[in-house]
Amino acid sequence: MKSIYLDYAAATPMDAEVFNVMRPYFTQKFYNPSATYLNAKQVRADLEQARADVAGLLGVKPAEVVFMAGATEANNLAIQGIMRQFPDERLLVSAIEHDSVLEPAGLFNHIEVPVTSNGRINLNILQQGLQKAVLVSVGLINNEIGVIQPLREIASLVDEERRRRRNNGIKKPLWLHTDAAQAPNYLDIHASRLGVDLMSINGGKIYGPKQIGVLYVRAGVDPQALILGGGQEFNLRSGTENVAYCAGLAKALNLAQDRREAEAKHVKGIKKFFIDELHNQAKDFFINGSIKFSSPHILSVTFTGQDNERLMIQLDEAGVQVATGSACSATDDNPSHVLKAIGLTDQQARSTLRFSFGYQTTITDIKTVVRLLSKMLT
Amino acid sequence: MKSIYLDYAAATPMDAEVFNVMRPYFTQKFYNPSATYLNAKQVRADLEQARADVAGLLGVKPAEVVFMAGATEANNLAIQGIMRQFPDERLLVSAIEHDSVLEPAGLFNHIEVPVTSNGRINLNILQQGLQKAVLVSVGLINNEIGVIQPLREIASLVDEERRRRRNNGIKKPLWLHTDAAQAPNYLDIHASRLGVDLMSINGGKIYGPKQIGVLYVRAGVDPQALILGGGQEFNLRSGTENVAYCAGLAKALNLAQDRREAEAKHVKGIKKFFIDELHNQAKDFFINGSIKFSSPHILSVTFTGQDNERLMIQLDEAGVQVATGSACSATDDNPSHVLKAIGLTDQQARSTLRFSFGYQTTITDIKTVVRLLSKMLT
Repeated sequence: MKSIYLDYAAATPMDAEVFNVMRPYFTQKFYNPSATYLNAKQVRADLEQARADVAGLLGVKPAEVVFMAGATEANNLAIQGIMRQFPDERLLVSAIEHDSVLEPAGLFNHIEVPVTSNGRINLNILQQGLQKAVLVSVGLINNEIGVIQPLREIASLVDEERRRRRNNGIKKPLWLHTDAAQAPNYLDIHASRLGVDLMSINGGKIYGPKQIGVLYVRAGVDPQALILGGGQEFNLRSGTENVAYCAGLAKALNLAQDRREAEAKHVKGIKKFFIDELHNQAKDFFINGSIKFSSPHILSVTFTGQDNERLMIQLDEAGVQVATGSACSATDDNPSHVLKAIGLTDQQARSTLRFSFGYQTTITDIKTVVRLLSKMLT
Repeated sequence: MKSIYLDYAAATPMDAEVFNVMRPYFTQKFYNPSATYLNAKQVRADLEQARADVAGLLGVKPAEVVFMAGATEANNLAIQGIMRQFPDERLLVSAIEHDSVLEPAGLFNHIEVPVTSNGRINLNILQQGLQKAVLVSVGLINNEIGVIQPLREIASLVDEERRRRRNNGIKKPLWLHTDAAQAPNYLDIHASRLGVDLMSINGGKIYGPKQIGVLYVRAGVDPQALILGGGQEFNLRSGTENVAYCAGLAKALNLAQDRREAEAKHVKGIKKFFIDELHNQAKDFFINGSIKFSSPHILSVTFTGQDNERLMIQLDEAGVQVATGSACSATDDNPSHVLKAIGLTDQQARSTLRFSFGYQTTITDIKTVVRLLSKMLT
């Protein structure tokens, strides 16, 4: 039985080119990059090359690229690292952020800005909240429903508020963070074009290694480190560097940005075909989140009256892997906070599947999956 | 020119067996272990097997093994995770701890317990400080001078203080943490034999991958997580798990404990030969730290009047890699806090080299190195 993997938003297989870049650092170029002999300095140079490569892809300076153990740590450093310095000030997050933003946000004075029923952030409420804020965190692509947030509009509002403060002699800073973990395969991630001051990137969602990521930290923004010690990563994240994974992430990000237009076109076709086939063969379903402002690789569908666990298991038995929610929260029993935020009932949230696509997904796969689904739904 | 690597305390090459264990998780078994279909559940099972393997080697329960991004993060979770809950209480650390203990200790009310000139902790001063403490952190093997601390004696003092508190109806807890990053290749790391409540283990020093480690957290000890989000690792450390490295660490730890007697015997011979050769061929040097209570893989030597940077560079040019201090702090200019704590002057600290050995080190290597050194010293 051929396996059809439709959970690329949870994990991606590593690209062979990425693996080849990583390979030498395990057994040969294993030196500690902080050591001072030549072999170690070469490894250090490779690490700095990886940093420079990432910086080039984000359109930022190498000194603004901090390697992290994945987007979760990057989100934590952005939120905790800034907000700890402003315990009396306010953080704004969207209501549909990933748990690695919402959980640290919970430690501080924060507001969850609601989203409309299509999943886009309510810009009016965001704007009203800005006056008291020092940090805004809005994810670029939501991992459950694929909605793309209007980051440039948000950046404009942030700029406007900064201008107001400057004009009124108010010294309080205001920064914009985005969790871009799901984005590099499909969107431009140039930091200044997006207008962000902080941005989280993840290796494990872009055909790179897991537990490696980057926090872009614009010069002048100064988060407090969470992990202290040897002072690696500009004193923002101590610990002997995992050069294999840093080099692997740089390669994966490079490939992602190189391929993103072709990849976006491919999965857009897949997604459109999936939706058309559903309309042809299934009934009593609806699609969650904006169709227009949505990443082509994520499709969230509610099958009214169905139990998503049952559908997931039946598909799994037929060789098709899909998600009932984000993988991180798949192990807890609460209905998705994202689906509830866009207005679904608990029951509807429990009838929802997430399909996510990658470069190995084919039209034939989708035909198979929709045929299976339509049988299960009757 | 044959390269002679004598910096195993800074980094170890990965064992081929470890690499083979890791290999499948990159491109084949890449699934997110939190997903709920069968392929992902198999990866989850492998992760839990790695955890159980580590637990078996430490003599603890699987639920007490928390995978971390290396010993630095593990030390931070132990120190920050406990002390944040007791902001008014005291932490005791030895004066020669690694920066990843001392830096987080600096955030809290803490005492650096001095060591004697042989590098062993002053047990009297430790005992005096215990009365107000909630946490004690003493590394098992010091990474710069190799000194082994009397952990069982410290554990007895901790037990005595706990008894005193119980008898006096004092509810304040007292826990013992050890950074055992340098230990598994040479020492027994059975947690209850050591008498510790928390223990940090590192992959990168035991022929395993870098940026993976473990914090053993005894049941009942409840540190506060530093990295929040999806709730992985018993809610103590969020982020999609790096199953490749977790499995690799388990394998590396297994090999380390299997081989440790043979490995200890081998490097003990290397170290003895090194010292004998130095006595035969060099003058104006002394060895730092206890000879009796010292790990066989680390040898710290002060070459009076010499500049350790110059010696390091000359050795490097001759194909020999040694350290001027711990790699983490090699990039800053301050003389080693460890060498100063055992009574060396700044000048003496700047005349000190660390040689560290591994299973590839040979007697012939040492002959070459001491011959080179004796020439440089005259």
